[in-house]
Amino acid sequence: MTALVPLSASSLPPPGALAQAVATELCRLLPGHVSVSDEDRLSYSRDMWPKAILWIRQGRIPPPPDMVVWPGTEEEVQKVIQLARAHKLPVIPFGAGSGVCGGTCAVRGGISLDLKRLEKVGPVDGERFTVDAQAGVMGETLERHLNAQGYTLGHFPSSIFMSTLGGWLAARSAGQLSTRYGKIEDMVRSLRAVTGRGELIHTPERPCAGPDLAELLMGSEGTLCAFTGANLRVYPMPQHRAFRAFRFRSVEAGLAAIRSVVQDGLRPAVVRLYDPFDTALVGRKKHAARAEVVPPSERGLVRGELLPILTRLVAPRAFGDPRLINRAADLFRRCLLVLMFEGEARRTLQEEGRARDLCKEAGGADLGDEPARRWYRTRYDVSYHMSPVVDGGMLADTMEVAATWDRVPEVYHRIREAAAPLAFTMCHFSHAYLEGCSLYFSFAVAGQGDAAVESRYDDLWKAALSAALASGATVSHHHGVGLLKVRALAEQLGDARRLFYGLKRALDPDGIMNPGKLLP
Amino acid sequence: MTALVPLSASSLPPPGALAQAVATELCRLLPGHVSVSDEDRLSYSRDMWPKAILWIRQGRIPPPPDMVVWPGTEEEVQKVIQLARAHKLPVIPFGAGSGVCGGTCAVRGGISLDLKRLEKVGPVDGERFTVDAQAGVMGETLERHLNAQGYTLGHFPSSIFMSTLGGWLAARSAGQLSTRYGKIEDMVRSLRAVTGRGELIHTPERPCAGPDLAELLMGSEGTLCAFTGANLRVYPMPQHRAFRAFRFRSVEAGLAAIRSVVQDGLRPAVVRLYDPFDTALVGRKKHAARAEVVPPSERGLVRGELLPILTRLVAPRAFGDPRLINRAADLFRRCLLVLMFEGEARRTLQEEGRARDLCKEAGGADLGDEPARRWYRTRYDVSYHMSPVVDGGMLADTMEVAATWDRVPEVYHRIREAAAPLAFTMCHFSHAYLEGCSLYFSFAVAGQGDAAVESRYDDLWKAALSAALASGATVSHHHGVGLLKVRALAEQLGDARRLFYGLKRALDPDGIMNPGKLLP
Repeated sequence: MTALVPLSASSLPPPGALAQAVATELCRLLPGHVSVSDEDRLSYSRDMWPKAILWIRQGRIPPPPDMVVWPGTEEEVQKVIQLARAHKLPVIPFGAGSGVCGGTCAVRGGISLDLKRLEKVGPVDGERFTVDAQAGVMGETLERHLNAQGYTLGHFPSSIFMSTLGGWLAARSAGQLSTRYGKIEDMVRSLRAVTGRGELIHTPERPCAGPDLAELLMGSEGTLCAFTGANLRVYPMPQHRAFRAFRFRSVEAGLAAIRSVVQDGLRPAVVRLYDPFDTALVGRKKHAARAEVVPPSERGLVRGELLPILTRLVAPRAFGDPRLINRAADLFRRCLLVLMFEGEARRTLQEEGRARDLCKEAGGADLGDEPARRWYRTRYDVSYHMSPVVDGGMLADTMEVAATWDRVPEVYHRIREAAAPLAFTMCHFSHAYLEGCSLYFSFAVAGQGDAAVESRYDDLWKAALSAALASGATVSHHHGVGLLKVRALAEQLGDARRLFYGLKRALDPDGIMNPGKLLP
Repeated sequence: MTALVPLSASSLPPPGALAQAVATELCRLLPGHVSVSDEDRLSYSRDMWPKAILWIRQGRIPPPPDMVVWPGTEEEVQKVIQLARAHKLPVIPFGAGSGVCGGTCAVRGGISLDLKRLEKVGPVDGERFTVDAQAGVMGETLERHLNAQGYTLGHFPSSIFMSTLGGWLAARSAGQLSTRYGKIEDMVRSLRAVTGRGELIHTPERPCAGPDLAELLMGSEGTLCAFTGANLRVYPMPQHRAFRAFRFRSVEAGLAAIRSVVQDGLRPAVVRLYDPFDTALVGRKKHAARAEVVPPSERGLVRGELLPILTRLVAPRAFGDPRLINRAADLFRRCLLVLMFEGEARRTLQEEGRARDLCKEAGGADLGDEPARRWYRTRYDVSYHMSPVVDGGMLADTMEVAATWDRVPEVYHRIREAAAPLAFTMCHFSHAYLEGCSLYFSFAVAGQGDAAVESRYDDLWKAALSAALASGATVSHHHGVGLLKVRALAEQLGDARRLFYGLKRALDPDGIMNPGKLLP
C-alpha cells in the first residue's frame, strides 16, 4: 500500500501527466461529469473502512484517485474503461461508498468511476415478478419503488440507505432477511456489466446452460468489471409478519434451536441469536410500529444505543485492556434469539408456531413477540453508531464469517479468544442455512492514542482471520474482501485461486480494474 | 463432425501412432484399467443421444475414442489428463453415458475417461447435513446410501438409475422434485475437479467471497475439467407426502394455477402440468405404493405405455405426416396438473390445502390424490420407453427449455408450430420458479427409412431451437448442450461467450477437454 497522504485538500499530490491527459480527454467525452478537484478526490479516497476513517481522524488520507467521473449511460461507462485501458490507468468502480474493507481505496490512483447516475428502474413485471434496475440505484430508492407497486426485493442490508445495487452485486451482499430470500446472488436473473476490456456483457437469464456467467462476475469487487444493471427477481409484499423471541442459557443451546428450525425446512425471514454480551446491549425502549423503511435521521435512535454510550463513558480506560471487560462479559449467560416469519398469513402463523415448538424443545424460554418486534423496528440503527465510537477515541469494526454447524461453536470461541487481548468482542449469529450460519462479530478497539489503536486494529484482524481460517470458517460472508482480507482469501482459496486469475486475464488483461483488491 | 464409421467392431479404425503411444504409457500408469479393445471403443462412442442410437441402428457409429481408461483415484485422473495434455490428445470425461445431446461423442478421438471407479461416499454428517461423494457414484446408489441413514439428496432425475454425480454436475442436472430442492447446483457446497491443465482444484465452501468458483465449473460438460467429487447438502427424509391432481380446461389455465402456487411462496416438490395430448397419454393402471427407488426392470411398466404402443401400431403411417396427428391432438383440451408436497407432516398438509384453494380459484377441477400418486409411482418409467420407439422405425427425443411466465405460452405455441410438420409433439411444464418454468417437449419423428428420419430429425431440432430463441426461451434447462445445441447456445450467449472462452483458455489452454462440445 502506498504511503498515506497528510489530510489537507490543498496538499493532495496533483495527478500525474498521464492522468491529466486522460482527465482532459474524459472532460471532452463526458462534459460536466468529470472532476479533478481535490475535494472530490479526497471524498473518493475512502469508503467506510474503519481504518480509513481512523486515518482521516489522524489527519492522513489513503491515496486518492486522480479523478472522479460520473457516466450517465452504459456507453459512457464503456468509453471511460476503454480510455483507461488505452492508457493503462486504474479504474475503481464506486457505488455509494458504504464498503467496510477498503474496497474502493485508490491504491494506485486512477479513475474513481461513480455509477450513481445509472439509476433507472423499470416497472415490475407483475406476471414474471422481475424488475430491471440500473446498478447505481440506491438500495432504499429501489425498495421504495418496489413497495409502491406491491413488491419487495427481500434484500435489506443494514447499509440500505447508503449502498447501491452495483455495490451489492460486487460484494455478494446479504440482507437481514436472507434466510428467507437469499443473498443478492439469489435474486439476480441476469446481469449487465462492462469488463476491463471495455466490452459490455449481458449474461443469459438463469437457469442457464453452461457455466453460470452471472456467478462468475458477482463478488468480483470491481476487479473484473463495472456492473451497469441487473434483472432481479422480486417478491410480493408479505401479507403478514409473525414475531417471536426466546431466551437461551448458552450460545450452544441457541444455535441448536436455530439448527433445528432450519433443518426442519422452515425459512424464517429473520433468525438472529445474540451472544450474552450482545444480548445485554440490545436496547429496551419501546416504539410504535413504523413504515417499512425509516431512515434513522427521521427518528430517535434505539437499539445499539448502549454501545456508543458505553464506549464514551467507559472507554478507553476499560477497553485499554479488553481482557477485563471480555471476562466481565462472560458473567452474562443469557442469549436472545429473535425470529420473524413473513408471507401468506395462515402459513406464516403455522410456521411461527412450529418454530416455537422447536425452540421450546431446545430449551428456549418464550419471551413473546415484543423483543422481536423491537429488533425489527430498530434494525438499521446500529450502522449509524460508528461515528460516536470513533469520536470516543476508539475504533469499532465488524467481521462476518460463515461456518457449518459442526464448526460454529469452535469458530465462535477461537475468534473470541484470538480477539480477547485486543478488542472488546461480541457476536451474533444470523443468515442461517440448512448446513450452517454466519457469525457476525463486533469489535471495539481502544489504545493510548491513534497510533496504538491502529497497530492494535491490525493485530486484531490478523489474529481474527487466522482463527477463522484455522477453525474452518470462510473469511467473509457478505462484507467482501477489499484490501482488508486479500491475504486471507488467498490462503482460503489455495490452488482454486488459479480459476480467478484465469478470469482476470480474460476480462481485464491489462490489470486496470480495481488493482490490489480481492486477491494479490 | 467427422464422418461416421460403419458399425462393425472389427472394422473400427485403429488408434493412430500417437494414441497408441499414449495407451502404452497409460497401461504402465494404470495397469488393468486401460482398454483399446474395439468393443470398449465402440461402447464409449455414444451416449443416449437419439441420433447416435439411430446411427447404430443404421449400422454406423460415431467416431470412437482411441482408448478408454478407468482411473481409481484423483491422482490417477490427474496423471491421465497430464499425459493427454503433454501429447495434446483429447480427453472426454465419461459418467454413465445417459446424456441425450451427444456430449460424450469422441469427435476427435482421444481418451474416454470413465470416472465410475471414483465411487466412494462418506457418511452423512448429521449435524451439518452434508455428505462427501466421489463423482463416479451412480445416482441411485448415492440416494439409497443417504436413505439408509435417514436422508435424501432431493435429486431425482429420470436418469437416476443410469447417471452419475459427475454427470449431473457437468450438465446442471435437474431432478423431478427441483421446485422444492433446486437443481444440482443448489445442492453443492464445494467441488473437486481436475482441470485441463491437470491441476486438482478444490473450490471453497459456499457461500464464498469472490466469484463463485463452483458455479464456474458446473455446466461445463467436460470442456474445462473432470469432476472428481463434491460436498453436497442433504435433507432429512420427508415425514409426509401430500398428493393432489387437478384438471384444467387449457394449458393457459393450468399455467396460471402453477404461477399462483409458486408466487404465493409455496414450494411443492412436484408441480407438473401436461398439455392435452400428454395428458391423454398418461397411463391409468393402478399400482400399490412401492419403495422409494424401484427400477422398472423389477416390475411391469405403467405410465407412458401408450406412447410405444401408439408408435408401433400407428406409426410410421400416421406420423409420416405428423400434422395430421398433431391436429388430432388439438381435439383434446383437458390438462392434468400433478402436485406433491413433502416435508414435516402438518406443514405439508397445510401447504397442500393452500395449493388446492389456489388451483380451484384458477378454475381447476379437483381430481383427488390418486392421479398424482400414480404419477409418483411410475415417475421413472418414461425413460425406458425409447428403445421400442426406435425399434418401431421412428426416433423419439425430448427438448427442455425454460422461460419466464410472460413468455411460456408463446414459447409453447411457437415450438409446437415449428415442430408440427416434422414430429408428433407433446409437452409438459415442470421445474417451476417464482418467475417461470421449464417446458419439456417430447417429439416422435417418423419417415420413409432411416435416412429420411435422420434428415427430418435435424430439421426438427433446427426449427425447434430457432423457435425457442425467437420466443425468448433458454436453449436448455437441464439436458445440457453437448453436440446438439452448440450453435444455439452460442447464439443465445452472444458476447457473453467471451467469458466462457476466457475460462477455457485459463483452465484448458491446449483445448484437450471434450473438444467440439458446449460452444464452438
